[in-house]
Amino acid sequence: MTEKSLTRNDFHMICVTATRWADNDMFGHLNNAVYYQLFDSAINGWTIESTGSNPMDSTCIPVVAESSCKFFREVSFPGLLEIGLRVHRLGTSSVVYELGLFAADADGQRVEEVAALGRWVHVYLDRASRRTAPIPDAVRDLLAPLL
Amino acid sequence: MTEKSLTRNDFHMICVTATRWADNDMFGHLNNAVYYQLFDSAINGWTIESTGSNPMDSTCIPVVAESSCKFFREVSFPGLLEIGLRVHRLGTSSVVYELGLFAADADGQRVEEVAALGRWVHVYLDRASRRTAPIPDAVRDLLAPLL
Amino acid sequence: MTEKSLTRNDFHMICVTATRWADNDMFGHLNNAVYYQLFDSAINGWTIESTGSNPMDSTCIPVVAESSCKFFREVSFPGLLEIGLRVHRLGTSSVVYELGLFAADADGQRVEEVAALGRWVHVYLDRASRRTAPIPDAVRDLLAPLL
Amino acid sequence: MTEKSLTRNDFHMICVTATRWADNDMFGHLNNAVYYQLFDSAINGWTIESTGSNPMDSTCIPVVAESSCKFFREVSFPGLLEIGLRVHRLGTSSVVYELGLFAADADGQRVEEVAALGRWVHVYLDRASRRTAPIPDAVRDLLAPLL
Repeated sequence: MTEKSLTRNDFHMICVTATRWADNDMFGHLNNAVYYQLFDSAINGWTIESTGSNPMDSTCIPVVAESSCKFFREVSFPGLLEIGLRVHRLGTSSVVYELGLFAADADGQRVEEVAALGRWVHVYLDRASRRTAPIPDAVRDLLAPLL
Repeated sequence: MTEKSLTRNDFHMICVTATRWADNDMFGHLNNAVYYQLFDSAINGWTIESTGSNPMDSTCIPVVAESSCKFFREVSFPGLLEIGLRVHRLGTSSVVYELGLFAADADGQRVEEVAALGRWVHVYLDRASRRTAPIPDAVRDLLAPLL
Repeated sequence: MTEKSLTRNDFHMICVTATRWADNDMFGHLNNAVYYQLFDSAINGWTIESTGSNPMDSTCIPVVAESSCKFFREVSFPGLLEIGLRVHRLGTSSVVYELGLFAADADGQRVEEVAALGRWVHVYLDRASRRTAPIPDAVRDLLAPLL
Repeated sequence: MTEKSLTRNDFHMICVTATRWADNDMFGHLNNAVYYQLFDSAINGWTIESTGSNPMDSTCIPVVAESSCKFFREVSFPGLLEIGLRVHRLGTSSVVYELGLFAADADGQRVEEVAALGRWVHVYLDRASRRTAPIPDAVRDLLAPLL
């Protein structure tokens, strides 16, 4: 199966999000940096809500070591988008996510194939020392079953 | 009734939107500029979807002549927000909107009182000449009944 | 003198900033929310650099209680902008700023008159309790001479 | 030479940009999506200013087919950043850029090594049909000498 033919069923979790007026750039479609905002929000929103952690005072914080995105179809405001998330690899202090962005067509019908495919490497750091730290247990317990 | 005690019922239309990781600033709450992004999206999303206009090629475009916001309660990612919209004044080429931002509390219960109150002046311009133009009929037909 | 005829000389401090591709919206000009990002950055950048405070651990934090902006001329990416700042009122725990946004014209010549005029109310809060707190001495010492 | 040891001298062109208050996320450093905004702005600002093209009405438009970034060092508001740009590959309708983000350290001294390294694939499309189109001559004339 090619990357372009991935569907919502290929992801563990789907979250819905809304587009904003300012997401569209001068070409009338979502600016590429917005995809990264949405991937970030899907990962962090899900882990924060699932583990009850507080990003303002947690001992360990996930920072992005590497990210990438392939853009297959244009999407635009207004309308909802869905972000699919799956765990590709789980290490001692890092995790690799894959993310799919799904949209509706001009008639409002959900398009089956992925509009963009992202890859995301989170490395956990100790907040104070900024040194690599083990993934917190609550996060590991959330991610491990998804492998 | 004071502004702080406005509720969802004081607005004509409510739309739901999602917060993003990057909406929170270093103080752990929504950055003030994000409120304006959300108000913009509520107004433009609603008028685009209701009138079927295309912001990339419409003859007349709404530009913001003035905006303001009063911030009553902190809100933050993750979670959904609701934006209420009402029409305060409708002129020949300008319209004044009032917008309320509504949130849930830490337990996920919807808070009745408005978290922020915005005011928004849209002036319609001819796209090419950038001169003031009458509000398009489709937009006027949408807004007039709300007065 | 009218607001529209304010010039750089009417402000205490001018800082230069750069526009970004994604600042322009579908109408080819700076989205209105970006002006608030730039005002925020001018105020906070100046107070942080002048006082040496760290927004991640300072005891008191400034939060926006109210903001507004009047938009007089369109500005757009690419190019530099200048933000002028002056102190309008200094209270025990709040400060009112006025901000002017200045641009260059299509030929790259600086336009004398202000393109947008903002008003900004910062209220200082205790970071932990979120209760109103006196403006920190270092900030007051910075602002008071500007009145 | 490793990627982490690239310096400003490894890039054809350097442009300076400014950080914003809202660029920092809850961890007190630049949110990863902001890097993509800055890369986008460096590429598009340079090509627009060098060729005199207008992104609102040009026949061909560059869209991002793929992008990626490796993050080596944290950077944060306030302060200036420098973006280095070089052309990695130039095809008939696509171009691959490499981008380096450079910062200053806590004492304001320019750090020699790159803080983040981006890769960017622009594909030119016909604005109306959204089909692949040859890179415009003015852009090709700008990029070819840099190979």
